[in-house]
Amino acid sequence: MNRREFGRRALGGAAAFAFPGGRLLQAPALRVDGERINAHLAALAEVGKNPQGGVSRVAYTEADLRGRELAMGWMREAGLEVGADLAGNLVGRRPGRDASLKPLLLGSHIDSVPEGGNYDGDVGSLSAIEVARSLSAAGVTLRHPLELLIFQNEEGGTLGSHAISSGVPAAELDRVSQSGKTMREGIRFLGGNPDRLEEARRAPGSIAGYLELHIEQGGRLDEAKIPIGVVLGIVGIRHWDVTLEGFANHAGTTPMNRRRDALLVAAQCIQAVNRIVKSEPGRQVGTVGKLRVEPGAYNVIPGRVVFGLELRDLDDARVLHFYRLIRAEFERLARAGGTTIGFQETLASVPALTDPGIRRAIAAAAKGLGLATMALPSGAGHDAQELARIGPVGMIFVPSVGGISHSPKEFSRPADITNGANVLLHTLLALDAG
Amino acid sequence: MNRREFGRRALGGAAAFAFPGGRLLQAPALRVDGERINAHLAALAEVGKNPQGGVSRVAYTEADLRGRELAMGWMREAGLEVGADLAGNLVGRRPGRDASLKPLLLGSHIDSVPEGGNYDGDVGSLSAIEVARSLSAAGVTLRHPLELLIFQNEEGGTLGSHAISSGVPAAELDRVSQSGKTMREGIRFLGGNPDRLEEARRAPGSIAGYLELHIEQGGRLDEAKIPIGVVLGIVGIRHWDVTLEGFANHAGTTPMNRRRDALLVAAQCIQAVNRIVKSEPGRQVGTVGKLRVEPGAYNVIPGRVVFGLELRDLDDARVLHFYRLIRAEFERLARAGGTTIGFQETLASVPALTDPGIRRAIAAAAKGLGLATMALPSGAGHDAQELARIGPVGMIFVPSVGGISHSPKEFSRPADITNGANVLLHTLLALDAG
Repeated sequence: MNRREFGRRALGGAAAFAFPGGRLLQAPALRVDGERINAHLAALAEVGKNPQGGVSRVAYTEADLRGRELAMGWMREAGLEVGADLAGNLVGRRPGRDASLKPLLLGSHIDSVPEGGNYDGDVGSLSAIEVARSLSAAGVTLRHPLELLIFQNEEGGTLGSHAISSGVPAAELDRVSQSGKTMREGIRFLGGNPDRLEEARRAPGSIAGYLELHIEQGGRLDEAKIPIGVVLGIVGIRHWDVTLEGFANHAGTTPMNRRRDALLVAAQCIQAVNRIVKSEPGRQVGTVGKLRVEPGAYNVIPGRVVFGLELRDLDDARVLHFYRLIRAEFERLARAGGTTIGFQETLASVPALTDPGIRRAIAAAAKGLGLATMALPSGAGHDAQELARIGPVGMIFVPSVGGISHSPKEFSRPADITNGANVLLHTLLALDAG
Repeated sequence: MNRREFGRRALGGAAAFAFPGGRLLQAPALRVDGERINAHLAALAEVGKNPQGGVSRVAYTEADLRGRELAMGWMREAGLEVGADLAGNLVGRRPGRDASLKPLLLGSHIDSVPEGGNYDGDVGSLSAIEVARSLSAAGVTLRHPLELLIFQNEEGGTLGSHAISSGVPAAELDRVSQSGKTMREGIRFLGGNPDRLEEARRAPGSIAGYLELHIEQGGRLDEAKIPIGVVLGIVGIRHWDVTLEGFANHAGTTPMNRRRDALLVAAQCIQAVNRIVKSEPGRQVGTVGKLRVEPGAYNVIPGRVVFGLELRDLDDARVLHFYRLIRAEFERLARAGGTTIGFQETLASVPALTDPGIRRAIAAAAKGLGLATMALPSGAGHDAQELARIGPVGMIFVPSVGGISHSPKEFSRPADITNGANVLLHTLLALDAG
């Protein structure tokens, strides 16, 4: 669809005449249709639905394709010019009044983890579509061009947004995704071209801003009964594999005081992580989520244990500060337990801070809608952290009941989702005006 | 070979005339040929030898069959009438002077764990053969009939001695052994008949006694530099699977104080086992040797942990005493950590005490040979614990260097093995005389 055709469709309907010339005379009164967002969420939940609840709409599967088809239909209904970039991200465009301005971007994702929930990604994607539709319905044309992005394979490593922001290394393309396809095969499956990914990349400074609405996936807003979170940034994440080597011996014949039990030392290390991470105020988190014992029998003293250590904070210097404390304590415990210890870093993802101006715009939009806000970090990774490499980003959180995510039990209340979408709409209007 | 033929062979040679009528006039001077035992150990070590050292002569494999062939040859050279019972145990017989007496038994095994050592089982089996050969060479005929048993599949659950003492349940016969064959197939592979196992069983009270020489598989004798261990009994062993259920949640978005981390509680439990088992004097041991984390990812708080708890002591009441203390502490820790806990007993093997009279005979034999002794429990299971169900048993231990066993690094000094075999010989002579 060319721009002329697009304009005709977007301006069709009665609402267009209420705001002639697209000026925002009555913009503060604009509201999304919350019922439609929640109806779309329910419709999308049918695609890849699990018998036991929740959804498995894993990137590069048939369910993913069907979800994208559904979203593209809604994007067209919202008056967007719909296509896909060479990385397989869905893109909906709406021209602005000033073609010389850089675009404002809205986005999120609709792929899920295996046996995931119906809110992670979907809330932000379908709310962004509704925001575009509300603008179209009201005949509002922004100053900036508007782009709506539904990034592919967020759950498998923010692959689509990675392609846009900094490019995807060849090794990553050969990695097998949760679908069983390699990333390369997956991109082709979605209609992208893995050999021309560079063309999907956008230059730093090429966007006016990026906004993403998302469920919190934590329990802070729900616990505090605050409807809107203003995200300070996406935490940095580092992973290490920690290996303890003791001595595997007969559990029946080796006295308690003659053992070099790698699991006993690992147990002390696991408690040390919890103790050290909690020893200072702040929102840092530290987790031991995986652990393997060798040889692994009732009657053999563990000779070798490998476990995963994860640390997250909004400040990478603090991640490294806690790592230093933990490592020193691990080394002390390993020595005391007659074991040796090794560390291997397997992931280093630096924090991505949101733009202070956009944070203020989100808070003001919420205030204008009579909604209380809380500033908080995002403990989870998001496409926004990739977009932060090329321009200012902002994120809006809505409450997750009980803080549950990546689970069929994931739930956000319809009213909270509608509030979030209205904050998204009015933040966009403010950024466009500013 | 019938008994008449056997008698001719056993009494053939010059030594027979030195002790006419088989009387033990010069018995205290009798000694085994230690060089031969150690040469046989070296020859057996070639069968199923691993490239990286040690041996994998797992029951019901080709290597096991070849080892048995070798042992049968040596048993025949020792003047024994050699056959196998319906369970596949090798049996060597030598008649006594008084056919009305119950037999005295010597025995052990020659199967190994995968990547095991060259001493566990082999030392006792080849020493018993040498004891029989020494008697033959010296023309000594005991009052009691003598039987030498090489039990099949000791390492896979003392299967052969189980068949003799109390029978093997059908379910056990269907279990797959380390060889890949079921126990049933394995018995057939050795020439036994799994459908007629009952005929291999021996009635309680049907034996005069059973003696087994074995490496300690622990470090007590080696540490104390004492050459002979008088075994007090074989410890009882109980196993439990302990399941902790917390809540699997996002490791990035769930604050430290909102977690129900099953692995963090498991870590506290592992330390509690160590603390409680060491809190009282004694030789009890407690081990957590296996542990599984679910879902098991860097970035997911462990929702479920299953681990194995093993407790051993010579007194089953003490095993249960420590279990009660540990269980109460686990339940307290589980509650405090926001998790639920479940226990399932998966093994209950009661202790088997050795006969006080045989213990005294071992100690006296060692003293007669100028060898110091230490009384100690066996922390490992042995065929002797099965034989204890049908008659008085005794066990002699020789030192394991560094206490290492079930490992290619397993080692016992040739001189210690020779000493052990001489104690075995003289204990047998004392029991026969007594």
